[in-house]
Amino acid sequence: MTTKVAKRIAILTSGGDVPGLNACIRAVALAAERSGFSIVGVAHGYDGLIDGEFLHLETEVLRAAVPRGGTILRSARSKRFTTAEGRAEAAKQLRAAHIDSLVVIGGDGSLTGAAAFAAEHGFAVMGIPKTIDNDVEGTDVCIGFDTAVNTAMQAIDRIRDTADSHARIFAVEVMGRDSGYLAWAAGMAGAADGILIPETDADWRSLEEKLKERHKTRTGSLLVVVAEGDETGGAAPVAKRLQAAFPEESIGLCVLGHTQRGGSPTASDRILATRFAVAAVDAIAAGKSGMMTALVGDDIRLVPIASVRRRPLALTPERLRLMEILI
Amino acid sequence: MTTKVAKRIAILTSGGDVPGLNACIRAVALAAERSGFSIVGVAHGYDGLIDGEFLHLETEVLRAAVPRGGTILRSARSKRFTTAEGRAEAAKQLRAAHIDSLVVIGGDGSLTGAAAFAAEHGFAVMGIPKTIDNDVEGTDVCIGFDTAVNTAMQAIDRIRDTADSHARIFAVEVMGRDSGYLAWAAGMAGAADGILIPETDADWRSLEEKLKERHKTRTGSLLVVVAEGDETGGAAPVAKRLQAAFPEESIGLCVLGHTQRGGSPTASDRILATRFAVAAVDAIAAGKSGMMTALVGDDIRLVPIASVRRRPLALTPERLRLMEILI
Amino acid sequence: MTTKVAKRIAILTSGGDVPGLNACIRAVALAAERSGFSIVGVAHGYDGLIDGEFLHLETEVLRAAVPRGGTILRSARSKRFTTAEGRAEAAKQLRAAHIDSLVVIGGDGSLTGAAAFAAEHGFAVMGIPKTIDNDVEGTDVCIGFDTAVNTAMQAIDRIRDTADSHARIFAVEVMGRDSGYLAWAAGMAGAADGILIPETDADWRSLEEKLKERHKTRTGSLLVVVAEGDETGGAAPVAKRLQAAFPEESIGLCVLGHTQRGGSPTASDRILATRFAVAAVDAIAAGKSGMMTALVGDDIRLVPIASVRRRPLALTPERLRLMEILI
Amino acid sequence: MTTKVAKRIAILTSGGDVPGLNACIRAVALAAERSGFSIVGVAHGYDGLIDGEFLHLETEVLRAAVPRGGTILRSARSKRFTTAEGRAEAAKQLRAAHIDSLVVIGGDGSLTGAAAFAAEHGFAVMGIPKTIDNDVEGTDVCIGFDTAVNTAMQAIDRIRDTADSHARIFAVEVMGRDSGYLAWAAGMAGAADGILIPETDADWRSLEEKLKERHKTRTGSLLVVVAEGDETGGAAPVAKRLQAAFPEESIGLCVLGHTQRGGSPTASDRILATRFAVAAVDAIAAGKSGMMTALVGDDIRLVPIASVRRRPLALTPERLRLMEILI
Repeated sequence: MTTKVAKRIAILTSGGDVPGLNACIRAVALAAERSGFSIVGVAHGYDGLIDGEFLHLETEVLRAAVPRGGTILRSARSKRFTTAEGRAEAAKQLRAAHIDSLVVIGGDGSLTGAAAFAAEHGFAVMGIPKTIDNDVEGTDVCIGFDTAVNTAMQAIDRIRDTADSHARIFAVEVMGRDSGYLAWAAGMAGAADGILIPETDADWRSLEEKLKERHKTRTGSLLVVVAEGDETGGAAPVAKRLQAAFPEESIGLCVLGHTQRGGSPTASDRILATRFAVAAVDAIAAGKSGMMTALVGDDIRLVPIASVRRRPLALTPERLRLMEILI
Repeated sequence: MTTKVAKRIAILTSGGDVPGLNACIRAVALAAERSGFSIVGVAHGYDGLIDGEFLHLETEVLRAAVPRGGTILRSARSKRFTTAEGRAEAAKQLRAAHIDSLVVIGGDGSLTGAAAFAAEHGFAVMGIPKTIDNDVEGTDVCIGFDTAVNTAMQAIDRIRDTADSHARIFAVEVMGRDSGYLAWAAGMAGAADGILIPETDADWRSLEEKLKERHKTRTGSLLVVVAEGDETGGAAPVAKRLQAAFPEESIGLCVLGHTQRGGSPTASDRILATRFAVAAVDAIAAGKSGMMTALVGDDIRLVPIASVRRRPLALTPERLRLMEILI
Repeated sequence: MTTKVAKRIAILTSGGDVPGLNACIRAVALAAERSGFSIVGVAHGYDGLIDGEFLHLETEVLRAAVPRGGTILRSARSKRFTTAEGRAEAAKQLRAAHIDSLVVIGGDGSLTGAAAFAAEHGFAVMGIPKTIDNDVEGTDVCIGFDTAVNTAMQAIDRIRDTADSHARIFAVEVMGRDSGYLAWAAGMAGAADGILIPETDADWRSLEEKLKERHKTRTGSLLVVVAEGDETGGAAPVAKRLQAAFPEESIGLCVLGHTQRGGSPTASDRILATRFAVAAVDAIAAGKSGMMTALVGDDIRLVPIASVRRRPLALTPERLRLMEILI
Repeated sequence: MTTKVAKRIAILTSGGDVPGLNACIRAVALAAERSGFSIVGVAHGYDGLIDGEFLHLETEVLRAAVPRGGTILRSARSKRFTTAEGRAEAAKQLRAAHIDSLVVIGGDGSLTGAAAFAAEHGFAVMGIPKTIDNDVEGTDVCIGFDTAVNTAMQAIDRIRDTADSHARIFAVEVMGRDSGYLAWAAGMAGAADGILIPETDADWRSLEEKLKERHKTRTGSLLVVVAEGDETGGAAPVAKRLQAAFPEESIGLCVLGHTQRGGSPTASDRILATRFAVAAVDAIAAGKSGMMTALVGDDIRLVPIASVRRRPLALTPERLRLMEILI
């Protein structure tokens, strides 16, 4: 005779926060409850795991947090969890609290750390990918990307208002140290006149020609979107190049910065977060571990965390070609 | 020896307008230019086709329209185009203007009309699906849906602010005469306490029980999202049922209405519109006709317009199950 | 020798909630602290006073609430407080908690209740006016008005997008049972083609003529904004009149409803709330009671609550004349 | 017997654009029509005056522009108009077009230029003040200020989301080379932990102490808003000081930049623009010239342009004191 033991799940958010985390935390909590599991929040990411910062998650607080950016669990980048001692301490804390399963919402680094921990200490671990860079291998989309794109696009729309009034030229920097996906999306949606991203060799001469052509024939503004990590070095050096190309103009420079990490999450981010959450709890219920939820096409799937890494070429050829045609 | 004749494409928007149409019109125009084709706008949908209301599309005007809701081409629901005489007149106008190809952005009705016209009069016709109901067979997503979901969700977020302050109960009606997709998405994203859609038999008794349970144990508000076309008859009758169930409470009623059709399009709608536009022009360049652009998973595909119709069960089982778990 | 006794202030929100209340609550708390007073929150308005629902106000929670609509103290319309027994019970609770001063954020009804209570039971009471109707005598502006105007205006902007695409005619209802200030402001800001408010005798014939003239000469939409309390009976009867005037058109109808009460408060509302809060605490520190904070021109002043009532003609002649010129 | 000659008014926008200009242009046009005057738009500010770039203003285009940032007339900073030759040429162009009156929407520099022109060449000139710095002497508020405050505040709200998740410290730079009004308002509305503006001697030591105190006792973020023109040198040097004060923290830096100049104008800006516009046309109808419209308290007044200059101390003592209490 076997007794089915109800699971006890801990949930934490790790690394840079993004909009949509709260919808994910809430859905994990509700799905856990529906499956007859108990749920515990962990504050401050892996550091909180090591320090045993466990929180009761109240339904009403979770619900009220859905429209909010950030994470009610707070987040952190933990150095201690990268050490064997730190992970051992975390395992001790989880066992003391009778927790057997862990859901980690994080980027590629946080998730591989989770998998290592699972293997090392025998907990069930499920990962949920989040990053505004949208560059986690195995999933088409990560939580936070859609909101960040809309925030950057709205900023570009605003800059366009004033740029058009004076027919000015602007370089606008969008976040993305290694990935240009966010800059690509914000630039395409914002009808930019140029998009410079690390995924492509910036053919500056060809872009300069296009800009000069447009500058000649029309009165509107010119707006070049630059990914933080583009090989040109970002919007500041691009503004200098623009100044050299258009010496008679006063070139504008805008670095969108951390505004792109906050704000009320879009519907798409809230719903994706919810789908991922339910899939993660389903996987735990089915006895799985070491997997990450993923969106592949329209389907939610599970992929091994072991294979998770940065996706260097997240932009499909079809998307890259759009730039050639529209710009 | 063959001479490749450059094509001349007309573009029109038909049926109810949605946010994202302007990004689509612009991208069709730019893609046509890149392919060496000429492009003509048609005002007022099929009526404008019959009346020969052809417009020059200026690059700068198109660019400035991208962040705007509505359609710079205006739209209409044409009765004349449903007659053979009307379509014959439209064909005459196109020929007189040396137009050989037509791109129609519309719902299922507008697109099947386009296909009939193509077959009848020998024009190349490409369809691009748009509807906030997101219920066109063959494509996972239509232009306009994402913006409408976000608009409805933001309205729900606002109602929640005041409802929570008074622990009030609200019925909120979301557009969708035949489809509950928009209501589902806005309700899920808005963390609704109930979602009533035509796709499911509203199990009113079970919902009432849940609401009563929550009403007992907490001080927050209760918010029921109802699709316009739900078999309960919409938010007004649902508000009455809620009043009967909670006689001591003052039930709020909100019909979101046409605000859901307007507003600046989201990044997702602008980008989808751009992808569809380029695919439609590519298809014309490849000599295709009678096809609709579609998003299937992450891919842009072409499906025969002949097979296009309302998609009665657009919500996947995975999505329907989310309601059971989260509500 | 006299000992200056530090005061202990309770704060509550009463009546319908509006955006900006949280900024006000926070500023009262911080200003009280700076003056060396202690501060206590009261939940659920006057009902919470009677029931002794006193809350500790945490600095960090207050700060996080500033961008949120609604009130973290919750609100209510109390019947019990209208009775002498209720007020006596409230006084007992306050005394038991060693509270000597009360700040009430409310509409004209809530504030006159506060003044009666002050006179009856010998507490220091200060009132702060809030209402999206902006119709409290003695102050030019109340907390909540600016946000509600912007929310209604943005909804009108959205409706205009779709209305323009189809050259449709819409009647849009804005809140305001007795006052047309909100409808006036949203209509003026939204460039409405007609504004119907209780402050003016709706000269329907003249409006109809103007609308017919515009309908003749142009292709754009027509949008009539109607205050809930207009003598026409609101947007539904106006839509019927419009239908009779334009029998060939399909008239749209939109009731903006409770979305106008929620949302993140505008800067103007947050700052006004802060100015009022500091003035209220200053007044308590100066030994005053029975007064309401007011904005008169650019200055914050105090007016006796005794003189507070609904302001039937809040719209100045200069503002009313704007309608004649712009519409 | 005298014949009343109908006036012909030209309108232009000069200097940096702000949200709200389009509502102003439209209202000037409608008010002029109502007064029986004719109206002409001038493109590109004073440069367009010199070059005779006169435009017909269409009612429908004006109406559609009301919700848009920027100016449909485009704007410029004209060097030529600062010369006697340039102004003589402008006068010639106006006479050739039978224009006798000029409405200029601009900052203090543009308006004093307009007054000089009026005196020199005998045209009726009315000025309307606009600037996001809100520092024009004689008026409490200028067009564009309210929108810019809300834009900056919303950016601060977003940064707070992510800053709170990591308990991070940020320096945020708000526009204002000579004036701290915008930074003050955005910082107060955004519940900043510090506000550094040129109007006050930054008592850095005292602010640092407060920040250290808060950093000790709580887990939330710290956010310091810095005006571009603060004597500290802006957000970058402030971030360095913060880094020195909190060596163990990673200090964030955000320069909001030109996003603050664009976006859909708030209701308050649209209505103020409309009130100013009607007052300007009224003044022209009454034979006045050389005056600027102004908001004084709740009233619209006229002040001589001759007395217009930058208002170095726009922030009232009451407003400055709010900082001391709330921060």
